[in-house]
Amino acid sequence: MRIGVLVSGRGSNLAAILEAAARGVVPEVALVVSNVATCPALEIARRAGVATRVVDPAVFAVRPDHDRAVAAALGAARVDLVCLAGYVRLIGAPLIEPFAGRILNVHPSLLPAFPGLHAPKQALDRGVRIAGCTVHFVDAGMDSGPIIAQAAVPVLPEDSEESLAARILVEEHRLFPAAIRWIADGRVRQEGRRAVWTDSPRTAGALESPTPGVRS
Amino acid sequence: MRIGVLVSGRGSNLAAILEAAARGVVPEVALVVSNVATCPALEIARRAGVATRVVDPAVFAVRPDHDRAVAAALGAARVDLVCLAGYVRLIGAPLIEPFAGRILNVHPSLLPAFPGLHAPKQALDRGVRIAGCTVHFVDAGMDSGPIIAQAAVPVLPEDSEESLAARILVEEHRLFPAAIRWIADGRVRQEGRRAVWTDSPRTAGALESPTPGVRS
Repeated sequence: MRIGVLVSGRGSNLAAILEAAARGVVPEVALVVSNVATCPALEIARRAGVATRVVDPAVFAVRPDHDRAVAAALGAARVDLVCLAGYVRLIGAPLIEPFAGRILNVHPSLLPAFPGLHAPKQALDRGVRIAGCTVHFVDAGMDSGPIIAQAAVPVLPEDSEESLAARILVEEHRLFPAAIRWIADGRVRQEGRRAVWTDSPRTAGALESPTPGVRS
Repeated sequence: MRIGVLVSGRGSNLAAILEAAARGVVPEVALVVSNVATCPALEIARRAGVATRVVDPAVFAVRPDHDRAVAAALGAARVDLVCLAGYVRLIGAPLIEPFAGRILNVHPSLLPAFPGLHAPKQALDRGVRIAGCTVHFVDAGMDSGPIIAQAAVPVLPEDSEESLAARILVEEHRLFPAAIRWIADGRVRQEGRRAVWTDSPRTAGALESPTPGVRS
């Protein structure tokens, strides 16, 4: 199995995936594709010796054409599994269909709460006490695909958007490689609107009890 | 401070509150009010020697009149804090306004996800991996008030609605008395759309890190 990673920003989740690949925890990253030529994530890929491609949306008249070009780049690199790691574009059928059931995204909330942009800020504005992140299969909706894994973190009274986002990001860096490993091992797959586990519940990649302690 | 508890069903959260009151963890329960004359919760109250009142909605022409009657019963019992513990009616201004900032509800989801009825089933249908419960101040909306506390539990692949609801209920029984204690101690109060903590972040009743372990 070969991984393709789609990026638009800092690339911290890409770095976590590359590190997991270097340790043999997840398969090789064959290609990193970005829609933003100047994003730091591309530099992280280059330093790791991974092939990169910029697919500039401005070159394409309509979004499906851009998606098609990204899919072609991934196909040419013989990518089996596509990981969206801070890729800030919605993707459509020309990219989803060739990789159906083999596209993952990580989102900084406990979906279905707070889809879309600025999820940590949404969580703070709503005043939740528990936030988290979600790895899910990608469909054509906004963070609406079948959920593979989630991790929870507390929201602290002194939190800023930045401090909460940073706490969530630590869990993203742990959860995303774990979910990729489960996919690579064939332990979980997409069936329509569901993520289906193929091994026993005891080892199905379910999160262990968070057992959050209430402070006295 | 004197607590009034509104119930409609089994009364398991009422039992948890009564047990906490017996241990001196939360203030005395002065009155239990139900809209359902036959609900088991009333029997739990009677066995604990707590005064009960049935306020039958069928007796009232419109909902505000029913709310007013419930508020009058709570007022006559000199209740300071109203706890909705499986009370299956939406409540309106005639009950909310006399107890503004002093009405709590417990809901079996990590709000804002899955408001309304059958939250554990909603969570299973969406395929989330982390579920939980929320204690919040009550406003006129459906489970929309300011959040005081939350606790998370894992969703396991073999879960039924019943098994997940039972796992969440364990946390409700822990979280609701804790939140009542925080209110009674003046550590948290409602200010408009927010729950505001008055003591230091280190002891603000925030949930400790759930640190959910990913099973290998």
